[in-house]
Order: sequence, then structure tokens, then C-alpha cells
Amino acid sequence: MTHALTIEPIGVIRSPLRSAAEAPRQGREARIEGVLEIEERYRDACVGLKPGQNIVILYWMHLGERDRLQVHPRGDRSRPLRGVFSTRSPHRPNPIAIENVEILAVEGTNIAVRGLDAFDGTPLLDVKCEY
Amino acid sequence: MTHALTIEPIGVIRSPLRSAAEAPRQGREARIEGVLEIEERYRDACVGLKPGQNIVILYWMHLGERDRLQVHPRGDRSRPLRGVFSTRSPHRPNPIAIENVEILAVEGTNIAVRGLDAFDGTPLLDVKCEY
Repeated sequence: MTHALTIEPIGVIRSPLRSAAEAPRQGREARIEGVLEIEERYRDACVGLKPGQNIVILYWMHLGERDRLQVHPRGDRSRPLRGVFSTRSPHRPNPIAIENVEILAVEGTNIAVRGLDAFDGTPLLDVKCEY
Repeated sequence: MTHALTIEPIGVIRSPLRSAAEAPRQGREARIEGVLEIEERYRDACVGLKPGQNIVILYWMHLGERDRLQVHPRGDRSRPLRGVFSTRSPHRPNPIAIENVEILAVEGTNIAVRGLDAFDGTPLLDVKCEY
């Protein structure tokens, strides 16, 4: 068994989404706007982020159940159980989400984006440029 | 400041790449074959993974320097420094890589894939289906 790793979130996601009922099923269809509140200590790491860019964010799905190894795809109980590694379920051993968003505005370490489906208060782990 | 999170790798990546000198610059051009050795305790989570599928893997770039906030893009010192959040550099506060790979074969919890650019021994964090 490999040893555990420690992640320190780089900030938090501010979003109008407050509950699972409000969340869109698939992020790529979502046009929800919110703000990536990156911690001040990472200001230098934000240099180069500009409005109009498409970026990839990683965040921690803190409501995911880490001990669920199988799910009904999209929560549809008429479909057979599948291993979480062949789905995009938030329930998985390491509940890290990948999302493509567009930068709308940059104010210091606050990055306004469009295309979110994260809940308000979600821990942000990383920001990358798209290939 | 948000609190730290703990990740337990789900397995390890076996790859012919042993050093940075051998690594391709961009994963999406790589056709390198290797094996995702997932731990036995996650066998149920692998149900549904099949040859021919395209999947997304997350892994921990254990050679990345977590305190580097700026880099010369692609290591080219003639280019001005940029914040790591506007690059795909392995140097970043949480050195998590995203890679798209194709499944070649599945034997229990060993998943043979093509398209890697991870070093041998890299901790594997997650496997997801592509959208």
C-alpha cells in the first residue's frame, strides 16, 4: 500500500449552487458563473491568467462518499451498478473533480469564471491552462 | 486558510520512463504504453473498465517542486516567467497531473494503457471515464 499524500487547497470556489438539487448533471453543459478565491500567498502563481482564457480546475468534491466503490450511472437505479473508476461519480476514493471553465475577469487572486458546477465553499486544488 | 486534505493513492503507474530526459513534453502526443497497477482493495471500483475505452487518469507528480510559483514556459529561459496556474508545469502547490489514455487490456486490477507520460512508480490518484 502506498503512503498517504497531503493536499493543501489553494483557495475556495464561490458559486450560487448550494445543494445537489440545484447542481447540473454534467459540468460541460453548465454555464454557471462564480469566483475562484485563491489565497493571497499564491498571488505570484496567478501571473498570466487573463479574461477569455479557458482553464482547467481541479477541486475536492467534499460531499463525495470515499468508501463507495460502485454506483448506478447518473443515479439511475434501473441501470446496473458500475465501478466508480468507469464513471464520473463524485463518490470515489479520492473525490477530485476536473472542470473546464472560462475566465471572465481577474482581480488580484480572485478569478471570475463561467462553466462551474461546484457547490459554494468547495476546496480548490489547482488551476491549469488548457492544452 | 483552508485545512489540509489527505489522499491515499489507489495504485501506482508502471511505465518505461525512468527520468525527465526521457519524458515527452506533452502527454497528448505520447503513445507510451504502461500499466495502472490498482490496489486489490479497489477491485469493485474497476468493474466496467474495458479495452478500447478512453479514460482520464489523475496522478501525483512526485518530482514536482511544490514551492515553485513561477516557471519559464516549457523550461525555455528566453520566455518570461509565468505563474504556474497559467501553465501545465509539474511544479505547482498540488502537483496533480491529468492525462487521457486508452485502455489496451484489463487483467483484474491491472489496466494496460497507451498514452502515458508518467514516470515509473508514479502514485495513481484516480481513474474516470471520459465525457
